[in-house]
Amino acid sequence: MIEMIAFDADDTLWHNERDYHRAAQRLQDLLAPYHPAETVEQALFETEMRNLAAYGYGLKAFTLSMIETAVALSNGQLSSNMVQALLDGAKEMVATDVELLPGVADALQALSPHYKLMVITKGDLLDQERKLARSGLADTFAHFEVVSNKTPEVYAAILQKHDLTPQHFMMIGNSLRSDVLPVVELGATAVYIPHDLTWAHETHVEPHADDSYHTLAHINDLPDLLRKLEKETHSS
Amino acid sequence: MIEMIAFDADDTLWHNERDYHRAAQRLQDLLAPYHPAETVEQALFETEMRNLAAYGYGLKAFTLSMIETAVALSNGQLSSNMVQALLDGAKEMVATDVELLPGVADALQALSPHYKLMVITKGDLLDQERKLARSGLADTFAHFEVVSNKTPEVYAAILQKHDLTPQHFMMIGNSLRSDVLPVVELGATAVYIPHDLTWAHETHVEPHADDSYHTLAHINDLPDLLRKLEKETHSS
Repeated sequence: MIEMIAFDADDTLWHNERDYHRAAQRLQDLLAPYHPAETVEQALFETEMRNLAAYGYGLKAFTLSMIETAVALSNGQLSSNMVQALLDGAKEMVATDVELLPGVADALQALSPHYKLMVITKGDLLDQERKLARSGLADTFAHFEVVSNKTPEVYAAILQKHDLTPQHFMMIGNSLRSDVLPVVELGATAVYIPHDLTWAHETHVEPHADDSYHTLAHINDLPDLLRKLEKETHSS
Repeated sequence: MIEMIAFDADDTLWHNERDYHRAAQRLQDLLAPYHPAETVEQALFETEMRNLAAYGYGLKAFTLSMIETAVALSNGQLSSNMVQALLDGAKEMVATDVELLPGVADALQALSPHYKLMVITKGDLLDQERKLARSGLADTFAHFEVVSNKTPEVYAAILQKHDLTPQHFMMIGNSLRSDVLPVVELGATAVYIPHDLTWAHETHVEPHADDSYHTLAHINDLPDLLRKLEKETHSS
């Protein structure tokens, strides 16, 4: 019997990656005199990976890696305008409206009378708090956890904090690496809802071939899955 | 009767502001061809204040404001080397060892058998987690809360989360604005331990003339203060 359903935030509840893509596109445009777009894209990704341990996830880490990539790839021609454009881009991302993914509001409304709902997300603390506030969903969730990484240990600590055992916990998200596999490892229920734009870092994981987690095409299908799971529990 | 004692982290438990001062000094050196040090210092502070709502607190926000100040004050002469030096500075700060303030280890050891201890800090989630891990104090604290701002509402939410009433809660820190006044407003006990380096943002608050909070010259004096408070509670 599931008691607590936890949702990833970015690209599970609301659009996010498209804003990062747009910002990365701007870097490619700025560096177009020096390098083809693919080179810039690859260098940015490598910079982000190299900086992950130092900077963590989120908008500010991304912006610092964008600037570092601009320094590295502008052949000593880095200009004030180039850096200012990247800083402006960060502030535009901060100011961007939060747009829920299709079906999210309905699915949460269907689930909230029957389950406790929470959010577990990586990224900048302030940025994620702002997105939650702007999403209109703040009152829907009993808890909102921003974590620096999504490992089995981090999930275990969250379960302990909320007095939950893995069999009462379900996690839903668009990243196998962050939302699904560590939760499966704990023995809890995980639901993978792929999103067509997902950061390469999160997709660098081989999908499991087994049925240790559930895959849904759309969050609309979540209430049905829960009904099915509850039925199986009752009849077993 | 105090049950839970919460500590601010930066410049209450360990050195921090001196690293920010050193980094700001580097910006002044880089911009010395264009502006006197005081102009750079003032512009950096204004940039940080302007960016506070967008970026929040912490190392990454500080670095982005450093770069923005460099763009603004380099008279269109911003160079790759200048930006690279600021990015290098951020990574040096990430790599810096955590050094406890004098007396912290002894004070915590004296208190931990008698009180539950926790940390409440602003800043980058990952950076604060890393500092806690490096401090050697992680096992000393029952809870570690990184918050985006220290308002009375944020403290009230933390108290509620841990089932505490204000009369059982004490907060200790070096910032009147963040650690002391919002806690006094809640009706809890606050202890102000000034630190000789405190960020201007945190000191832009008029000290209260009343005795609504306690001021200690040194964290060594904390166990004595607690004994005195417990005695008063018992005899009243």
